[in-house]
Amino acid sequence: MPTNIPDTMNALLLLHDGYSQTQEGPAIDTLEPYLEYREIEVPKPGDGQVLIKVTLGNINPSDLHFIKGEYGQPRRAGVPAGFEGVGVVVDAGKGGEALIGKRVAFYVVANGSGAWANYALSDVTSCIPLRQDLRDEDGATIFVNPLTAIAMFDEVKKSKAGSFIMTAAASQLCKLIAGLAKEEGIKPISIVRRDEQIDYLKSLGSAYVLNSTSPDFAKQAAKIIRDEKPRIMLDAVADQTSEILFQAMPNRARWMVYGKLATEAPQLNQIGQLIFMDKTIEGFWLVKWIRNTPAKQQIEAIAKIQALFAGGQWKTDISAIVPLSSAFDDLPSALSGINAGKVMIRP
Amino acid sequence: MPTNIPDTMNALLLLHDGYSQTQEGPAIDTLEPYLEYREIEVPKPGDGQVLIKVTLGNINPSDLHFIKGEYGQPRRAGVPAGFEGVGVVVDAGKGGEALIGKRVAFYVVANGSGAWANYALSDVTSCIPLRQDLRDEDGATIFVNPLTAIAMFDEVKKSKAGSFIMTAAASQLCKLIAGLAKEEGIKPISIVRRDEQIDYLKSLGSAYVLNSTSPDFAKQAAKIIRDEKPRIMLDAVADQTSEILFQAMPNRARWMVYGKLATEAPQLNQIGQLIFMDKTIEGFWLVKWIRNTPAKQQIEAIAKIQALFAGGQWKTDISAIVPLSSAFDDLPSALSGINAGKVMIRP
Repeated sequence: MPTNIPDTMNALLLLHDGYSQTQEGPAIDTLEPYLEYREIEVPKPGDGQVLIKVTLGNINPSDLHFIKGEYGQPRRAGVPAGFEGVGVVVDAGKGGEALIGKRVAFYVVANGSGAWANYALSDVTSCIPLRQDLRDEDGATIFVNPLTAIAMFDEVKKSKAGSFIMTAAASQLCKLIAGLAKEEGIKPISIVRRDEQIDYLKSLGSAYVLNSTSPDFAKQAAKIIRDEKPRIMLDAVADQTSEILFQAMPNRARWMVYGKLATEAPQLNQIGQLIFMDKTIEGFWLVKWIRNTPAKQQIEAIAKIQALFAGGQWKTDISAIVPLSSAFDDLPSALSGINAGKVMIRP
Repeated sequence: MPTNIPDTMNALLLLHDGYSQTQEGPAIDTLEPYLEYREIEVPKPGDGQVLIKVTLGNINPSDLHFIKGEYGQPRRAGVPAGFEGVGVVVDAGKGGEALIGKRVAFYVVANGSGAWANYALSDVTSCIPLRQDLRDEDGATIFVNPLTAIAMFDEVKKSKAGSFIMTAAASQLCKLIAGLAKEEGIKPISIVRRDEQIDYLKSLGSAYVLNSTSPDFAKQAAKIIRDEKPRIMLDAVADQTSEILFQAMPNRARWMVYGKLATEAPQLNQIGQLIFMDKTIEGFWLVKWIRNTPAKQQIEAIAKIQALFAGGQWKTDISAIVPLSSAFDDLPSALSGINAGKVMIRP
């Protein structure tokens, strides 16, 4: 091991193993039930792994679902949390030597060690060397949101419709998707929950932005859907509002759920539409996409992502960067702002 | 027109156009709100059509959904109801001449005239000349149930699982599917609502038959599903019980809804499974299958169906044959029996 790597580091560690069986959604009032902040040994890279000195650890809704035990992968108590980040490779197992000294974006897989720490452990194949003209803030968000945006928007393109629906449309992810949609001339029908988000998204060029809490929402949405005939709904909420939108969609509509911000369970009030209108309800998970998509296509996607960030078509809005040393106390309030910019952790 | 065809006939006619917007399911207390019994002109076959003197008109749940305005096709007021039957071709438009005098099973398409009448109008392509060794009772049920059984069971075979789930498993349709499953050595997990149906289905050779109203149903079902790993649920009920079964199913499970016997709307309590377990909810509709399946494959399916009925592997259980002249009054009680045999109309 190179001599400049300390024996121990600080990290936000998972307290529990496995799943919680709860379904509370990603809202966090306090980290106390899920994490602890303490000193542990710096992990050592095995074959095919690299050790990364973390510059920024990102926080996505999936991280919050995960630490609460509500995500599709089991937790491992005592291991640092944080699925993605940016940093510099400082050590490597067999097969990763060429990456040493490189600034990389990384994603933490099942046997790795998370990004909310001084050092993280990632697979060589889950590391991408970054272009010099890319900001750390953009590099820290290269995997989860951008790949999800590209993969889900591919389904929109395949639907051949001139529009699509997205819920929770003020999220960073949906802003990326809106950017892709603009390039292709496909109109997003954006659903939000606050009027100030309407104005913001309209200022970014969205043609249709609807507030799902407004009294005439269902009527407005039905009219727009009738006119625009979207076939895909990208849904991060999965509540009764989503079901109402799905009902209004035309034949062969696909309700594609990728998140569950709502805690309420939607009721299916129009089962006949599944039968007679050939509609489907399904999920999208990036982990499955990564598993099933050829490496070449993934590498092209990452190159495109770097170019979009470097060229300014995409930009990561930051709402807070919290020091690792105070993150345990400060994260919940940093995450609670109505501003949907990213919150990151700086070790 | 041949001289032995009268000018008028009796028929059960639809009272309403289009859809009702209700979702009551197929239960019928009285036909009064939906149909009337009266004399009308015998319809004349256009190009590509044949006129059939009806021997037996069949009654499927889809007919009941349809007359109530709850099916996927709009009603036409003043046109006889009844989607399928058996009879003899007595007249034909251009292209149907070769069928005159033949005994056929027929299916009534959108521009036809229904089977609950002395004469029906069908497309040449929706008529199948019957083998001599086939009973009228089997011929009258050749399209809807058997094609649905074959088409849906194809999905079960494609799932590569050694088992599948079917709800409303005491239906004639599910008995046909059970016959196909036996041939292939695939185990049905049959869900019913009455104990006497359990005994009956077990006597027919079903390994797993569960009563969804029994107190330990969910636990029993979960254990069997864990052991057998079915990937497809063929569901004619679509209630909360179906959702509970779907929750218990493994990765890549498909909840395939082809009927809506329940009036209750199921709640989706495990949205995360759509995302992380790659589960989907979809519909099956025979009309779509017929539209999308090559003619050759359909002809082979019909030949197989005739062979299965003629060979005795399949048999249509009849619970009542009601004369057309008294059907308006007698059908509701004939349909209400707990015996799930077919009810037919004889003109």
